[in-house]
Parts: sequence; C-alpha cells; structure tokens
Amino acid sequence: MIKHSKDLRTDRVSNFRGGKGEIQMTHFLETEKNEFNAKGRLFAKNVLKPGTSIGYHEHVGDTETYVILSGEGLINDNGDQKPVKPGDVIITKNGESHSLENTGTVDLEVMALILFD
Amino acid sequence: MIKHSKDLRTDRVSNFRGGKGEIQMTHFLETEKNEFNAKGRLFAKNVLKPGTSIGYHEHVGDTETYVILSGEGLINDNGDQKPVKPGDVIITKNGESHSLENTGTVDLEVMALILFD
Repeated sequence: MIKHSKDLRTDRVSNFRGGKGEIQMTHFLETEKNEFNAKGRLFAKNVLKPGTSIGYHEHVGDTETYVILSGEGLINDNGDQKPVKPGDVIITKNGESHSLENTGTVDLEVMALILFD
Repeated sequence: MIKHSKDLRTDRVSNFRGGKGEIQMTHFLETEKNEFNAKGRLFAKNVLKPGTSIGYHEHVGDTETYVILSGEGLINDNGDQKPVKPGDVIITKNGESHSLENTGTVDLEVMALILFD
C-alpha cells in the first residue's frame, strides 16, 4: 500500500514537551490503522526550524530512536549535552530522557521511531 | 546513547532478494544489542545506485515500511507497479510482497523499518 507524501498526516505542535516554538511532525504510520502491529506508537519525520526545540522529557515504557537527516542541533542525551549532525542516531531507552534543539541556521530534520518495551 | 554515523554498521549486499547490482544498508538499530525490544528486526537506510534493485520478495510474519528519502524509483507493491518519489511511504504487510528499483539517475535512498506481526 502506497501513501503519497501529500496524504500523510502532518501536525504542527507548539511547545512540544515544553520545547521552544512550533515543530512539524509528519506521520508515516498510524496507530488507528494498526500499522504498528501494536509494536510501537510513532514513526515520523520531525522538522525543527532554527531556534525551536523538543523539550526534555522521559520515556516510560518505550524506547525512542532519533536519526538526524539534515541540519544540526544539540541533543541532551539523558543529561549529557552533545552536538548532533546528519547520520547520528540517538537511542533513548525506557526510563531515560532527551531533548533536541535546532542550534543551526537551517531546518533540523529528524526521523523518530518509538517502540514499546 | 549516541551512535555517530561513522560507527554505524553498513553492509554492501549483492543481488539482494534477487535484485540487480549491489545495494548499501546502514543499520540504525541492532538486534544483537536488543535495540528493537524484540519488536522488529530492521531499521536502516538503504541506498540503491541507478540501475540497482531490491528483488521481489514476500514478507512472512512481519511488516516492512519504506520511506523514500531521495531519488526516484519503481515499486512493485504486491503486484502493482508504481513510480515513487521522496516522501512516499510503502507498507508491505504480512503475506504481501514488494520490490524496489532505482529507475532514476541519482541514488535512491529509502528508510526501511520491519516490525514483527
């Protein structure tokens, strides 16, 4: 089954997890259509414009993986702040926390996958 | 936990699933490190150079999602041949089949996620 990009659900979310500004989330799979086989709850591309962020938050009962696609930013990886660039992968396990901020001058695009524990 | 792009496992696979040429697979998560929480078995970026392909194959016991990142190609979506472009999502469920060929002039990059049924 093919979903064309124009048919994907895109949410614009302000102050996501307490972050700055508005981010955009484009969803590849939908829980309501059972497209995760009950194995997870998010597979999406997040776009953070310069200066915006996803606030620091804990993962409980699941693991989130970020894959940086483009742009540059600052990750808080369970307490450690580090710069990230395209190709970097950040894994935040059950009980761990993270935040992500676009500290660059172009859009920061990140693939996000959440799998249940 | 951060994995930098240079530390990711990249496989070069010839005639993958009976396809043409050699494709490149860069793995974001590893089964051996229990990074899928036993919920799936592949989260990777596949790069198909022009003229190469992933051969037609059936999925048994799992669902694979492709997200086209760049380039253009031809998908065989369980018997239907259709062109695909960046942003398109192809879902191949348990019992369904697919193939993907790079019919363009630049690399075809596709994110692949396999979740168990």
